[in-house]
Amino acid sequence: MNMVTSVPPKPSRLRGDRVTMAHGGGGKAMRDLIEEVFTDVFLPPGSEDQARLTSDALREPGAQLAFTTDSFVVAPIEFPGGDIGKIAVCGTVNDLAVGGAKPLWLSAAFIIEEGCEIALLHRVVASMKAEADKAGVRIVTGDTKVVERGSADQVFVTTSGVGVIPPHRDLAAETIQAGDVAIVNGVLGDHGATILAARGDMALTTDITSDCQSLNGLMETVLEAAPNARAARDATRGGLASCLNEMAEASALSIEIDETALPLRDEVKGVCEVLGLDPLYLANEGTLVLFVPEAEADAALAAMRARPEGQGAAIIGRAKAGHAGRVTMKTLFGGQRLVDTLVGEQLPRIC
Amino acid sequence: MNMVTSVPPKPSRLRGDRVTMAHGGGGKAMRDLIEEVFTDVFLPPGSEDQARLTSDALREPGAQLAFTTDSFVVAPIEFPGGDIGKIAVCGTVNDLAVGGAKPLWLSAAFIIEEGCEIALLHRVVASMKAEADKAGVRIVTGDTKVVERGSADQVFVTTSGVGVIPPHRDLAAETIQAGDVAIVNGVLGDHGATILAARGDMALTTDITSDCQSLNGLMETVLEAAPNARAARDATRGGLASCLNEMAEASALSIEIDETALPLRDEVKGVCEVLGLDPLYLANEGTLVLFVPEAEADAALAAMRARPEGQGAAIIGRAKAGHAGRVTMKTLFGGQRLVDTLVGEQLPRIC
Repeated sequence: MNMVTSVPPKPSRLRGDRVTMAHGGGGKAMRDLIEEVFTDVFLPPGSEDQARLTSDALREPGAQLAFTTDSFVVAPIEFPGGDIGKIAVCGTVNDLAVGGAKPLWLSAAFIIEEGCEIALLHRVVASMKAEADKAGVRIVTGDTKVVERGSADQVFVTTSGVGVIPPHRDLAAETIQAGDVAIVNGVLGDHGATILAARGDMALTTDITSDCQSLNGLMETVLEAAPNARAARDATRGGLASCLNEMAEASALSIEIDETALPLRDEVKGVCEVLGLDPLYLANEGTLVLFVPEAEADAALAAMRARPEGQGAAIIGRAKAGHAGRVTMKTLFGGQRLVDTLVGEQLPRIC
Repeated sequence: MNMVTSVPPKPSRLRGDRVTMAHGGGGKAMRDLIEEVFTDVFLPPGSEDQARLTSDALREPGAQLAFTTDSFVVAPIEFPGGDIGKIAVCGTVNDLAVGGAKPLWLSAAFIIEEGCEIALLHRVVASMKAEADKAGVRIVTGDTKVVERGSADQVFVTTSGVGVIPPHRDLAAETIQAGDVAIVNGVLGDHGATILAARGDMALTTDITSDCQSLNGLMETVLEAAPNARAARDATRGGLASCLNEMAEASALSIEIDETALPLRDEVKGVCEVLGLDPLYLANEGTLVLFVPEAEADAALAAMRARPEGQGAAIIGRAKAGHAGRVTMKTLFGGQRLVDTLVGEQLPRIC
């Protein structure tokens, strides 16, 4: 890949350093942009517009194909710990992984604002490639469109992902049982707090970086250690609270978490106190919550902690019979508080 | 599907008739928007965020999975003959079909501008559903994001598609041979001319409507009639000219087309004359060019004409040895003219 090796770059055929409307027109300028910024990084050389793929895993009797999509509009586009490209790869990989799928292939579609710096596109694309390599997935097909200045905000990325769910694996929130244990793989709210701090208008300086990371490796390790794991969700928009509410509703159980058990950084608590936010609703981009039978909880926790993405893993609560759909938290002071679904929004364009 | 039957609509939980930032926040408002506008139409009830799919066709030895993606930013969003939703389904179905794949499943991701009318979203989504039904594909997973007013233009749609290429089918421009015949399924330029006329600032009134249609049914019929067909492309952005140039380059042959043979409406010619445009570069959204061995040309043409999408089918030229990558046209007056790749753009936001 040209961008991350020391091979001297080829002379550019792109006139100027910004995207123009011509780069979206379907003609020569568009082909130059695609060839220079996108194709080298994504596709096996010579492959066509449409990716043609085979996988033995997909052919196995009982295997299912998993398919997911997400648009990414995060602002700012680059932030401590990641950028829109990295988050687009992680987000789609994680959507597949928490459903029990092994991610295989990604597509990437770019909506680019006229005037966007080509150097920014290079960085975003290099970061997608690096994260895809790390996660062991291939970005196999793509698209670019250009819209007039003021009709988008620099660049939006939409990734779709295809993966394979091995036979006999059926993670689903509906299968959670009373007594099952809830485990998170790491500290909460880093991504949300990072984006907040990265927005110029906040005048917050923190050392927090986004937790943006791919969780497919972690999920495979955990599912080996805890083969009866019930369901997982990545706690993105709406944070842990929204995740747990969805799972409580789907399982027709209540979920009780313990505030003292929640892994939270002091810096994140600080940002939340200053701004009157609740870390339970802050977005994460590399954090999941997993429900396992009590008998497998220790094994799942140990498996998580053995991996870099699971260093901060912790048991945070459990599912209980009754009060279907309700999520509560035992507070630091021994009380109990309802953890409701987020109404409205805490922070726009978080991912 | 709620939108197109006469069942009285359920009372709306969406406050107001426009999208607000809260609808993208990951909380209750977002779930209401998704449930009211999107889920009923797309997903089998109760299915999860991530689609889980199986297909016997994919398991067949030698079958390949095809995967493609496109973002759609067409302006205006609604135009005679279609809207951004219909074009998003047709575009992705056609990308799969011209590569020889049978389209199976689509994803749909929406980037919505704050203030977008919810009624518009309803119409776009209903139109996607109608076209998907017509094409025999399922929209199985989706996403919505909301950005601030001025950071998008009402709504952008990104569709990805998964299909299956049956064993022993290998359409590729590289396989085109000298002497092969080029056939189009219908008149050229309708989509481009429609979008031009639909832009308020042009003060053009025409009766042209977009050719926006799914071509997977037509492709299957033609491939039965002409089993040795070499390659097809849908002539979207950049028009027929850009398509032919790509195919000439990939095959290392030249392509000669005949101006008298090109199916063109008088209205399209008129729009082009008034505006100084060349119909060869006008976008199409339901028109493909197919190369077949001469021996199968009549069968392919007849198979096209037997279908509504192929009523206007015509043989327009052929591939020739030498001058690799060059496309020429015999003009009405008996001369010969070079048909170059589009440089820059004829019309922004055509799809």
